[in-house]
Amino acid sequence: MAGALAGIRVVDLTTAYSGPFCTMHLADHGAEVIKVEYPGTGDQTRHWGPFKNGASGYYHFLNRNKKGITLNLKCGKGKEILRKLVQTADVLVENFKVGTLDGMGIGYEELAKINPKLIYASISGFGLDGPYARRPCYDVVAQAMSGIMTITGFPGNPPTKVGPSVGDNYAGTYLALGILFALFHRERTGLGQRVDVSMLDTLFSVLENAVIMNTLAGEIPRQAGNADPSIAPFDVYAVKDGYLAVGVGSNAQWERLCRIMQREDLIHDERFDTNGKRVANYETDLKEIMTRWAAGYTRQELEETLVAAGICVGPVLSVAEAVTHPQIRHRGMILELETQELGRISIPGVPIKLGASPGGIARAAPTLGEANGELLSQLGYSAADIEELAKEEVI
Amino acid sequence: MAGALAGIRVVDLTTAYSGPFCTMHLADHGAEVIKVEYPGTGDQTRHWGPFKNGASGYYHFLNRNKKGITLNLKCGKGKEILRKLVQTADVLVENFKVGTLDGMGIGYEELAKINPKLIYASISGFGLDGPYARRPCYDVVAQAMSGIMTITGFPGNPPTKVGPSVGDNYAGTYLALGILFALFHRERTGLGQRVDVSMLDTLFSVLENAVIMNTLAGEIPRQAGNADPSIAPFDVYAVKDGYLAVGVGSNAQWERLCRIMQREDLIHDERFDTNGKRVANYETDLKEIMTRWAAGYTRQELEETLVAAGICVGPVLSVAEAVTHPQIRHRGMILELETQELGRISIPGVPIKLGASPGGIARAAPTLGEANGELLSQLGYSAADIEELAKEEVI
Repeated sequence: MAGALAGIRVVDLTTAYSGPFCTMHLADHGAEVIKVEYPGTGDQTRHWGPFKNGASGYYHFLNRNKKGITLNLKCGKGKEILRKLVQTADVLVENFKVGTLDGMGIGYEELAKINPKLIYASISGFGLDGPYARRPCYDVVAQAMSGIMTITGFPGNPPTKVGPSVGDNYAGTYLALGILFALFHRERTGLGQRVDVSMLDTLFSVLENAVIMNTLAGEIPRQAGNADPSIAPFDVYAVKDGYLAVGVGSNAQWERLCRIMQREDLIHDERFDTNGKRVANYETDLKEIMTRWAAGYTRQELEETLVAAGICVGPVLSVAEAVTHPQIRHRGMILELETQELGRISIPGVPIKLGASPGGIARAAPTLGEANGELLSQLGYSAADIEELAKEEVI
Repeated sequence: MAGALAGIRVVDLTTAYSGPFCTMHLADHGAEVIKVEYPGTGDQTRHWGPFKNGASGYYHFLNRNKKGITLNLKCGKGKEILRKLVQTADVLVENFKVGTLDGMGIGYEELAKINPKLIYASISGFGLDGPYARRPCYDVVAQAMSGIMTITGFPGNPPTKVGPSVGDNYAGTYLALGILFALFHRERTGLGQRVDVSMLDTLFSVLENAVIMNTLAGEIPRQAGNADPSIAPFDVYAVKDGYLAVGVGSNAQWERLCRIMQREDLIHDERFDTNGKRVANYETDLKEIMTRWAAGYTRQELEETLVAAGICVGPVLSVAEAVTHPQIRHRGMILELETQELGRISIPGVPIKLGASPGGIARAAPTLGEANGELLSQLGYSAADIEELAKEEVI
């Protein structure tokens, strides 16, 4: 696999989900990501499910393509090895609590001195500065404080979390983008720099027009279920065997939908003859008409009929159905990978497709300390040194 | 503002939310983004709320920092201008239905011929290939088919959409990252390439361990509300004046929480003395204990007490409360901007923070065709030519 980041070395001190998701993007596109884990225990995701043969599927999908070494960063010899490694690196990524690495003498200021071209990238809950900087943060807290939970879910329900930890993975993606901005900048200027992404800033930045609805119009955006507040019909409907999303974006589509429903009478019904009126009369009238109609068909029946009419439609799929969906499969979004610990596994593929430098999945996630020999030899340690370091639990 | 992408010119043919969110990131970090709109009507978001003085707040927050020109790409003269512009550009971004620009003679193959260094980046619902490639797609359909709706929300509820259009904005962010991979690759190789991101691939890639729960463990992940399936207590609780997110990640934190609740008896209660037991007995026992306790306090009371004990906590904020939160403000996540059409507005700031090349918000979104004179002069058109092009509705 030719990857856009071939030749870029990343020292990856991250654990859990946010940071490793960032470095997954970098590794998928050809960077040499050296995952640094604590000797003996390793990344906490090694203990997160699902498991097989005692090994973690969570760890494996997230850390594919990475090399793994172990290093005790609390001892002097471990820090010395890290400093040597950083001198060979382009990027360092970390998601410790703010200030932790500074306190250990391996913060940005220290490491930039020994490698001024280093890009030092941090994910935190609240950012490197501000009154909340040093607070611990989990995904659910970032989701809670961003406002996103109060605009997700159905009216009358409690605030609703986005299922997967988007506070983690979106911040990881933003950090990857920040690292690429910095790498590009370094190509032009020769200088490294610090990159700082927080989970709270990230989620706050993806609320669509909710923020400006508040600051410009003085509104407090609320939960609106699955319906779109400005287009109708545009909602999710229960059908015989599940649910279906339908979006009707124009009068021409509305007319075609009415014919499909065998309700030509509705085309020029004065409650529904413009999008504005369909929106205004959706909750009171149109929703029930759509709901009753949809209930008589299966997902597949309605999908085929509406697609043929050029109306935007899609079934609500379970994760199991998405995994086997022909479009997901065609796009390589499920790839098989041979692993030492789990055997052959199916994991999510590479979502960002580049024509000339596609990247891909070239190797399984590392066993703990798998690349200790390779990397330490490169740094000048002999086989005897390495054995000694292992005995002292430095690696 | 020094931006990492200073000197990079982006021709932005995108409309609505996904593409403009991509180019917002690029413009925030210093790229010269030339937003191309249809003469007369402009981007559809100019007609999306909230409005003030007849102008759109939606358009304005999303298109800050961009230059705007108008161009009718359906006519020969419009295409000729686009081709000249592309010869001066580094990147072209588009989110038309797949195949639209090819059909108009301004697809990737054509434009790469006249500028082999061009990075041509596309967002689509389902990707450039595969059986679903040419289907129309709105955010709700991408959310539906990705599986995310079946793992968001409360058990017993219908599948639940993430409130903001994350199918759009996350795909836009992935496309920005893809463009940066390609820009970096071009620095090293001199070659442009095609970048292809789909809304469906994007959301499928951010389901955390839901995919591997299915492929490795054979499970069908389901809605789990706000509770974490593998840590407890880790949930959102109703308090006197709203809701609060609390996460207890270790036995030491559990002990401190018990003391705060004045329930020292629970510390060694055999239902709760390990995380595994707390998870196993959460729904049946622990949830009610937590719920009753939390109900007696306000958000602020519990936030202060738990923060002091080093327990991860945060209030569920409305969007209005997030907008005025001291951490959001400290981080510059709300910035004021003077605009011609809306006066002074407050919009979301730049979420990716770079130390040496911070970027920022330097200019308001363009009025329709604002930069026609500037850009067309650069391409060699005289004032009289430009007047004629306007008369012919080419611009």
